[in-house]
Amino acid sequence: MLNKNTIFLVLLLFVPVSLAGHFLHWDATIVFITAGLAIIPLAAYMGTATEEIAVVVGPNLGGLLNATFGNATELILAFIALKEGLVNVVKATITGSIISNLLLVMGFAMLLGGLRYKEQEFQPTAARLNASSMNLAVIAILLPTAVEYTSAGIGEATLQHLSVAVAIVLILVYILTLIFSMKTHAYLYDVGVADLEIESDSTEAESSHKPNLWLWIGILLVITLTVAVESELLVESLEEATSALGLTALFTGVIVLPIIGNAAEHATAVTVAMKNKMDLSVSVAVGSSLQIALFVAPVLVITGWLIGQPMDLDFNPFELVAVTVAVLIANSISSDGKSNWLEGGLLLATYAVLGLAFYFHPIVEGLG
Amino acid sequence: MLNKNTIFLVLLLFVPVSLAGHFLHWDATIVFITAGLAIIPLAAYMGTATEEIAVVVGPNLGGLLNATFGNATELILAFIALKEGLVNVVKATITGSIISNLLLVMGFAMLLGGLRYKEQEFQPTAARLNASSMNLAVIAILLPTAVEYTSAGIGEATLQHLSVAVAIVLILVYILTLIFSMKTHAYLYDVGVADLEIESDSTEAESSHKPNLWLWIGILLVITLTVAVESELLVESLEEATSALGLTALFTGVIVLPIIGNAAEHATAVTVAMKNKMDLSVSVAVGSSLQIALFVAPVLVITGWLIGQPMDLDFNPFELVAVTVAVLIANSISSDGKSNWLEGGLLLATYAVLGLAFYFHPIVEGLG
Amino acid sequence: MLNKNTIFLVLLLFVPVSLAGHFLHWDATIVFITAGLAIIPLAAYMGTATEEIAVVVGPNLGGLLNATFGNATELILAFIALKEGLVNVVKATITGSIISNLLLVMGFAMLLGGLRYKEQEFQPTAARLNASSMNLAVIAILLPTAVEYTSAGIGEATLQHLSVAVAIVLILVYILTLIFSMKTHAYLYDVGVADLEIESDSTEAESSHKPNLWLWIGILLVITLTVAVESELLVESLEEATSALGLTALFTGVIVLPIIGNAAEHATAVTVAMKNKMDLSVSVAVGSSLQIALFVAPVLVITGWLIGQPMDLDFNPFELVAVTVAVLIANSISSDGKSNWLEGGLLLATYAVLGLAFYFHPIVEGLG
Repeated sequence: MLNKNTIFLVLLLFVPVSLAGHFLHWDATIVFITAGLAIIPLAAYMGTATEEIAVVVGPNLGGLLNATFGNATELILAFIALKEGLVNVVKATITGSIISNLLLVMGFAMLLGGLRYKEQEFQPTAARLNASSMNLAVIAILLPTAVEYTSAGIGEATLQHLSVAVAIVLILVYILTLIFSMKTHAYLYDVGVADLEIESDSTEAESSHKPNLWLWIGILLVITLTVAVESELLVESLEEATSALGLTALFTGVIVLPIIGNAAEHATAVTVAMKNKMDLSVSVAVGSSLQIALFVAPVLVITGWLIGQPMDLDFNPFELVAVTVAVLIANSISSDGKSNWLEGGLLLATYAVLGLAFYFHPIVEGLG
Repeated sequence: MLNKNTIFLVLLLFVPVSLAGHFLHWDATIVFITAGLAIIPLAAYMGTATEEIAVVVGPNLGGLLNATFGNATELILAFIALKEGLVNVVKATITGSIISNLLLVMGFAMLLGGLRYKEQEFQPTAARLNASSMNLAVIAILLPTAVEYTSAGIGEATLQHLSVAVAIVLILVYILTLIFSMKTHAYLYDVGVADLEIESDSTEAESSHKPNLWLWIGILLVITLTVAVESELLVESLEEATSALGLTALFTGVIVLPIIGNAAEHATAVTVAMKNKMDLSVSVAVGSSLQIALFVAPVLVITGWLIGQPMDLDFNPFELVAVTVAVLIANSISSDGKSNWLEGGLLLATYAVLGLAFYFHPIVEGLG
Repeated sequence: MLNKNTIFLVLLLFVPVSLAGHFLHWDATIVFITAGLAIIPLAAYMGTATEEIAVVVGPNLGGLLNATFGNATELILAFIALKEGLVNVVKATITGSIISNLLLVMGFAMLLGGLRYKEQEFQPTAARLNASSMNLAVIAILLPTAVEYTSAGIGEATLQHLSVAVAIVLILVYILTLIFSMKTHAYLYDVGVADLEIESDSTEAESSHKPNLWLWIGILLVITLTVAVESELLVESLEEATSALGLTALFTGVIVLPIIGNAAEHATAVTVAMKNKMDLSVSVAVGSSLQIALFVAPVLVITGWLIGQPMDLDFNPFELVAVTVAVLIANSISSDGKSNWLEGGLLLATYAVLGLAFYFHPIVEGLG
């Protein structure tokens, strides 16, 4: 049967192909596509390795590791793009990851799960709390844009100060949500975590119950290095490839890159939804968005500021509209703790119209 | 007693009056008002005829007929205005119909129903799903405006392409909602439909249980033709009449025309609310908004494109604000499945302040 | 123990200090700070006196008194600022009071209450209805800004007409909510009021069950006069003090003044939350916001219009963003009728990022 593991093994072949493309100076479009495909299985394996290490080091440190490395692929990809000065691409990737997790990943999970089960249920308390955290995060990330847009003009230095201050608040909130979900109110999230452990046990036949810590740390390092290498290929070929494909930097950042970066979450969320574990499916999709907004985005702002590639939180106003829209419709659909195939369809339709709008948006800014 | 049927019979007298006004070249204001009043009973009779035919042809085809012809009056009126090139009036009628159904119709239903019953209840699952569909529809319809407003300027051709693409997505979503509500999850909507059948039986004493199909098709054709004729009178007198009355094209399209077009839904929603059938009342109001957004608006965009009267989805930004506001407050009031007179009052107050804002809005665009 | 009453008695010492500062021509910053501190206990005593009178005159007139004088401090402060022509400061105080009640007061109440109790509950029906009223009020107050912002420009006279018309609708809605909560649906609000009476009995040991009406009316008059006097000092020192402290008029109006004006509500909401009376705590915070939006703001618009200091409802667009954001996140957190410490933290974090944004906002307008 053509299952997830087989697909990942095949996709792994693109690692040497993309490297060959780079050294033999093939067309940038080919390097871009093969590097993109190569990153998908690496992101999935990185997740597996992190979970194995988490099992050994215990629930507290393990939960922290999981939460921190959950979006390591997005983080590495964004770091390299930031280092190359592609600030607008990095910003577009942030909004795009939030949108694609909430609409595309959750949409497919609810649609495919809903075609098999008439009505699916998930824990509404955690869903509501995630929704409220998401609201805050989106508000915080988009406020600097609103300040810029509603004033006669705010200086670059002021915008940078405001962005760093907002980033610090967001990281504090991220720490609070970790304390809440792992310490004081862990019972609210228990079901999901238990399911996740059973899930990884049953789908990964090779995993033992007492994995070898150093082996997995070694594997994680190798994978991380490969992701870095592949991300370099992706970023260096990005400009030439997208213009050859007729795509704007905005569309590439908002639509194309997040689909590559979130492929692993996507596979997990859909797989568990089809096993009627909607609690876990929704928490993967929303949790991943939350990590992007509360951890990845602020870390990038602070890093950019430290390495002298100032990355402020001043987005294209249409990104503000798109993220607001995505959060509102995801909240309205997930807040009752029930889902069906039409709700999945509505999320996907929202993603489709946003995708169309980004495709046709006559962006004036460049990549950096 | 002065009941609904008596009022409709009296209003029917305005059909010959408006025709006389047209041929005797009376003042445009008189033709406009009489044609407007004449359309009200015609819209109601059109609904009755469609329901009678629906009973004969069976639930599936009947439900489709009902869903498609439910807003036939709005559609005919908009077609004729579009043919005459009054594109801005047509667009304003779309937003106005959504606003007036959600705020004015639902507001009066909750207020008058709530004055008789302390607390009224309706099925929250269908209400929530309708709210989510409405959110999507409004987002989709307003995205082109947001693209236009957040960019340095988007070409007319691009805007037209985007609008047609969005229209196609909306019609697909409309088909999905029909499949959901009539096939896979029909049980969620059963109560409302059963009530509607009992309702039409009890209020329409003349209806037999096995209506004559061809008779009703004939009646429907005659009514449709009369509506067309009256719509022509309304549209041709519109420009002169509104400027004589000191109204802007925006106010006429958003406030005046939807009150005429939705009078039938209005009467039904209020009547059944006063019989404590809030399920049906809410579904008439929200369902009518949904049909406008998911069916009437995209059909008009595609038709306009085919007949060479390009109608894009680029609205006045204040219409965007008004529709967003109407949907948010209607969601916030209907999402708990309960209503009382104050909630009706809040919807009407929202309609009042939006009406004031449209009245004072210094619009610069013309009718077309 | 350093309880609320002791703190208030100490703060009362700032009444003579601020007067001395004024007459001895001390630095404006000192007068501003001491007058601000002096107002805090006066606002609390004003509330106590109003409640005592309310007990004597009976539930109906008493409820009305409570509702009308509940925000008397804000009203007096705003009147004096309006008389001095500081229109922009008054407008900023209105949005700031709404934001600080919903985010700061409710946030601290939920955080501190939630640190003591794992999960706290409050009546969701009243919370939802308050949320819907708040939505309407915010929509109404911000519509003139939206009209101004989405049009080529609206004349000052038109804006004034629209603002007064909106103000009249809001006062009508305020009267409707009073009828609803005190007459037709009083039972929905019973718990909160009963708690409030027990609360004031237990914290105010000196209050007898049959207070002397004329004594309390006398006390209320004295306190009101003192508040007026102190408000004069605050307003006259405001311009010089804020520029000496490096604060913009916008920041002072949105952040500093509402903290002074709402200190009493703040103390009450937090105290009762720590006694697990979340119903009362939430209703104090949201109720106070509602009174600002439905009563204080429209009264100021109408008064300004009558005394020839035209105060329209045209806000800085960023205030529109901030209030919308505050209402959305407060709704999303309070709509399920449950709270915990993280939800309090999220409200406070939202307040923090809004505060940062207002601090960095490069405002161009002046005080008046």
